[in-house]
Amino acid sequence: MIELALLIDTASLIYVFDFIGIIACAVAGTMLAMSKGFDLFGCVLVSMVNAIGGGTIRDVMLDRYPLFWMMDLNYVFTITLTSILCQIFFCPTVRINGVLKFFDAIGLSAFSVIGLTVALSTGAPPPIAVMMAVMTSIAGGIMRDMICQELPMVLQKEIYITACIIGSLTYLGLWRLGVMAWLSELAMLMVVFGVRMLAIRHDWHLPSIRMVGWLIKNEGKK
Amino acid sequence: MIELALLIDTASLIYVFDFIGIIACAVAGTMLAMSKGFDLFGCVLVSMVNAIGGGTIRDVMLDRYPLFWMMDLNYVFTITLTSILCQIFFCPTVRINGVLKFFDAIGLSAFSVIGLTVALSTGAPPPIAVMMAVMTSIAGGIMRDMICQELPMVLQKEIYITACIIGSLTYLGLWRLGVMAWLSELAMLMVVFGVRMLAIRHDWHLPSIRMVGWLIKNEGKK
Amino acid sequence: MIELALLIDTASLIYVFDFIGIIACAVAGTMLAMSKGFDLFGCVLVSMVNAIGGGTIRDVMLDRYPLFWMMDLNYVFTITLTSILCQIFFCPTVRINGVLKFFDAIGLSAFSVIGLTVALSTGAPPPIAVMMAVMTSIAGGIMRDMICQELPMVLQKEIYITACIIGSLTYLGLWRLGVMAWLSELAMLMVVFGVRMLAIRHDWHLPSIRMVGWLIKNEGKK
Repeated sequence: MIELALLIDTASLIYVFDFIGIIACAVAGTMLAMSKGFDLFGCVLVSMVNAIGGGTIRDVMLDRYPLFWMMDLNYVFTITLTSILCQIFFCPTVRINGVLKFFDAIGLSAFSVIGLTVALSTGAPPPIAVMMAVMTSIAGGIMRDMICQELPMVLQKEIYITACIIGSLTYLGLWRLGVMAWLSELAMLMVVFGVRMLAIRHDWHLPSIRMVGWLIKNEGKK
Repeated sequence: MIELALLIDTASLIYVFDFIGIIACAVAGTMLAMSKGFDLFGCVLVSMVNAIGGGTIRDVMLDRYPLFWMMDLNYVFTITLTSILCQIFFCPTVRINGVLKFFDAIGLSAFSVIGLTVALSTGAPPPIAVMMAVMTSIAGGIMRDMICQELPMVLQKEIYITACIIGSLTYLGLWRLGVMAWLSELAMLMVVFGVRMLAIRHDWHLPSIRMVGWLIKNEGKK
Repeated sequence: MIELALLIDTASLIYVFDFIGIIACAVAGTMLAMSKGFDLFGCVLVSMVNAIGGGTIRDVMLDRYPLFWMMDLNYVFTITLTSILCQIFFCPTVRINGVLKFFDAIGLSAFSVIGLTVALSTGAPPPIAVMMAVMTSIAGGIMRDMICQELPMVLQKEIYITACIIGSLTYLGLWRLGVMAWLSELAMLMVVFGVRMLAIRHDWHLPSIRMVGWLIKNEGKK
C-alpha cells in the first residue's frame, strides 16, 4: 500500500520535475533567442527546440510514435506561454543565473530518468539506454545553440553529460541488484541533481583527459 | 459537378503552388550556397535541404512513410535541375530580390496548407497541426541557414511564421464552421499569400513584445 | 562454391571497410571537437555524430528500425574507445593528415556501398538510392561541422560527393547489366575509393559550373 503510494509519488515527481525542466529550457531558449534579435514566434520556436527537441530525437530514434508532445498538449502550451511571458517581462541583459541553473538541474534529472526508462521499456540494451538518457538531456540545448550560431555549451567543460551518465549507471546498478523500478528512478533523480548542483556550486569541470597522455609521455622521458 | 471541378482545381492549384515554392527555395538555397563557395553538388544539396527539408521533418514527426519526395520523383528532379541551371546562369552577386520573394510567398502558402492538412489527416489535434504547418514552411530554411552558418532569417523580425499561423487559424475557423475542405484550403492559401505579400510591400515587422512589459512597468511607476 | 566464398568476402570486406571508416570519422570528429575546447564526453558525442550520424539519418528517412547501431553495439563501443584514446594520445595541433584521409576514403567507399544497397533493399527507386548513398557518406560530417560552427568541408570544392555518385552510377550500371550484386558492390567500392584517392593525390577540385554560363554569355557577345 505504501509502496503503491510511493510508486505513484515517484511518477508524479518525475512529471513535475519534467515540467520544471521544460520551463527552465523554455526560459533559457527564449533569452538566447531574444539576444539574437529573433521575433515573437522565432523566440517561441527556439524555446520549443530547447525544451522538447531532445525528447523528440529520442522518440524518433526509438521509433516511438506518436511523439510525446503530440499526445500531451501541456508541453506545447506550457512552452508557448512561458516563452511569451518571458519575452514580455524579462530584460534581455539578464544572464542565465543561479535560479535558472537550479531549475535546469531539476529538469536535467527528470529528462535523464525519462530518457533511460523509456529506452529500456522499448527493449534497448543498457549502453543504448544510457545514450538515450544523454540525448534526451542535451540534444535540445545543442540544437538551440546550433540555430543561434553558438558553440554548444553542454559539450564544453561542464559536469553535465557526466551527471547524466553517473545517474544512469546508478539506476542500472540498482536495477541489476533487483531494486524496484520506482526506487531506482528516485535514486537516479537525486544522483543526477546532486552531481549537477555540486558541480555548479564548486565550479567543477571535467579535467582535460589530454593530461593523461602528457603524463605518460613525460614518464617515458625520465 | 462544379464543386467537383473546383475540388480538383484546388488540389491542382496547391500542387502547382507547391512546385513554385520548391523552385523558389531551390534558387534561394543555391544562391546562398554559391556565396559560401560550395561546389556543384554542395549547392544542389543545400537547395534540397531548403526545398524539401521542412516536409521531411514533418513526415518524420508524424511517422508518414515513405517520405513524400521518395514517392514523387518530380521533387528531386525539379530541385536538381533548378539548382544546376541557377549555378550556370545566375550571378552570385545578385541578391534575393522581389521576384524571388514573390515566388517564395506562393511557396509559403502551399507549404502551409499542405503541412496543416497532412497533419489533420493523420489525426493530429489542431494546435499540433498548426505547428506542422509552421514546420513545413520554415524548417527547410532554418536548416539551410544552419548549414551555411547564418542566423536563420525566418526567425528574425519578418512576418513569415505569423502569415502561416494566421492562415492556419483561418482554415481551422472555417473548418469548424463546416465549410468544405477545398474552400477552406483556398481561403488559407490566399490569406497566407496575402499577409506575406502585404508584409513585404509595406515592410511590416512584428513589433517587439518586450515593449508590452516596458509599458506595464512604466504604468506602475506613475 | 567460389562465388559463395567471394560473396562472403565482399560482405566481410564491406564490414571491415565500414569500421575503418567509423574509426577515421571518430578520429576526425574528436580532433575537431578538441580544437573547439569540448570536454571528454563532448568529444565522444561529436565523434558519434560524425561516424554514425549519416547512417542514422538514412535509416530514419527509410523507416528502417531498429537503427543499425542499436543492434550492433560494436559501433558505439568502437567510437567511444577511439575517441577516448584519441583524446589521451593525440596532440590537438596535429591537423587531419594524409593517413587519416586515406582511411577516410576507405570509409567513404564502404558508407556509399552500404547506403546504396540498403536503400535499394527497401525498394527505393535508383535516384533516391543514390541520394541515400550520398547521405550516408556526408550527413555525419555536415552535422559535425554544424555543431562545431564550421562551414561543412564536404560541400566545398572537393571531389567527395562526386566520388560517391560516380561509384553509385557504376553499381547501378552493372546491376542493370545483370552483374551479380557482390561483384557490383566490389566494383563500386573500388571506384569510390579510387576516384577519392586520385582527387586527393592530384588535388582535383570540381570546376566551378559558373564558367559554363560565362562562356555562353561571351559566346553570345561575339
